[in-house]
Amino acid sequence: MSWGVFDSGVGGLTVVHALLERLPNTSLVYLGDTARVPYGIRSVETVRGYAREALRFFLDAAVDGLIVACNTASAVALDIFEEAIDGPVIGVVVPGVHEALSETATHRVGVIGTQATIRSQAYAQRIRELSPRTHVVAAACPLFVPLAEEGWIDGDVPRLVAARYLAPLREARVDTVILGCTHYPLLAGVIGEEMGEGVTLVDSASAVAREAARRETDARVAQVRTAPTPAPQHRFCVTDGGGSFANVASLFLGERLTGLETVELHPHP
Amino acid sequence: MSWGVFDSGVGGLTVVHALLERLPNTSLVYLGDTARVPYGIRSVETVRGYAREALRFFLDAAVDGLIVACNTASAVALDIFEEAIDGPVIGVVVPGVHEALSETATHRVGVIGTQATIRSQAYAQRIRELSPRTHVVAAACPLFVPLAEEGWIDGDVPRLVAARYLAPLREARVDTVILGCTHYPLLAGVIGEEMGEGVTLVDSASAVAREAARRETDARVAQVRTAPTPAPQHRFCVTDGGGSFANVASLFLGERLTGLETVELHPHP
Repeated sequence: MSWGVFDSGVGGLTVVHALLERLPNTSLVYLGDTARVPYGIRSVETVRGYAREALRFFLDAAVDGLIVACNTASAVALDIFEEAIDGPVIGVVVPGVHEALSETATHRVGVIGTQATIRSQAYAQRIRELSPRTHVVAAACPLFVPLAEEGWIDGDVPRLVAARYLAPLREARVDTVILGCTHYPLLAGVIGEEMGEGVTLVDSASAVAREAARRETDARVAQVRTAPTPAPQHRFCVTDGGGSFANVASLFLGERLTGLETVELHPHP
Repeated sequence: MSWGVFDSGVGGLTVVHALLERLPNTSLVYLGDTARVPYGIRSVETVRGYAREALRFFLDAAVDGLIVACNTASAVALDIFEEAIDGPVIGVVVPGVHEALSETATHRVGVIGTQATIRSQAYAQRIRELSPRTHVVAAACPLFVPLAEEGWIDGDVPRLVAARYLAPLREARVDTVILGCTHYPLLAGVIGEEMGEGVTLVDSASAVAREAARRETDARVAQVRTAPTPAPQHRFCVTDGGGSFANVASLFLGERLTGLETVELHPHP
């Protein structure tokens, strides 16, 4: 099957990286809305409008399933995709929550993300639904994204920034932290150091890739094969092709990216 | 007369603040494109497309003159406004350059700004045109905007970030630094400390306000008054009203902002 992967920018490539490790023969269409990144500072209404435009793109691309890699869009606009796409739609919130709940021993879980993600309480609500006794401490970390994009992932500055943002999580003695933003795995080193030994970091990217692989296996089992699997094709599309996407992409994808397409989005009619 | 003030976000309010100090009786319409801020990470083509949409807004608002407070848009899209608006169009680049050239004694000038502004070389080119013997050292400081918006304007983190970004300017022993981004005046304290005594910081916001006041006086002198000046009106418009604009605005404007309007932009036909 072919997957669409939607992100506000470049961060969703961490999900692509994890996905291709699990499903090397899958086809995928990546859309990074680089003309309007970051979503995490915008209102729910604006993010939902952008999601509707992305929906039309993925319907035109005729993907079989969609991964919403952007935490902000997963938190506030997943239903827009679920209602219109005839196949699995996977956001990053649910797989991340499941993994965190299976990891925590003390039932004290931390969640970090952008302002919009934390304000939405999407992670905290889902954790409470699934495990009412789990105590959740959430913190917005707005400087983590620009730090990751600058490539400042170790040294004094990220360490001091992490210390400040993570203080409430440390005080609450959480034993598990959900990295609720696709950029944060790049800062996992300093986040891990700051939280200390014995604290597990949950990277939504791998949790989502695992979930997608499970769905793809289910789909294959359910399907009566009538045609051979086509050779996998990977399209990488952005709404602003002139920025630093191509340069930063290799940091996230783990390899050089070629054949970047610039696309224009339009509202879903 | 009535001025339009265009910015990608909230930073242009520093220009409004300076403008109202000089022209307390002027009317103004502010547009912050908060649904798509920041412009500084985007390509020239994308910023020019957004400028065309802003142009239509200001034509509809029938302003007498326009201040492009956004350094990125001033650097790469000023001609779009100049061609279509029948009145003065003032970007931040030219007034900033004039002030820097009148301040520097050693003819060694530093310019700091977003990636797009620095990549455009708009400041460096204009300085070379007006003063070929002046040596220009430019540095992009991508973390300054998120630091200012977080309100982290003093302490260890901004100091370490400033030390890293400003090292090439210090090594080049510039005696004047153009703050080529509307957010940077908020960090003037740490920037000044890092550059050391005897280095002048040029804030484009005040240079632009001074230029606007001069143009308004010229216009008044040229005009035969037929009607009394109407009571000044101030409209503040954003493309995403749900973000942190209203909260952050007071930092930039120096007073609480009321009556924020959310507007939708459309391409100029």
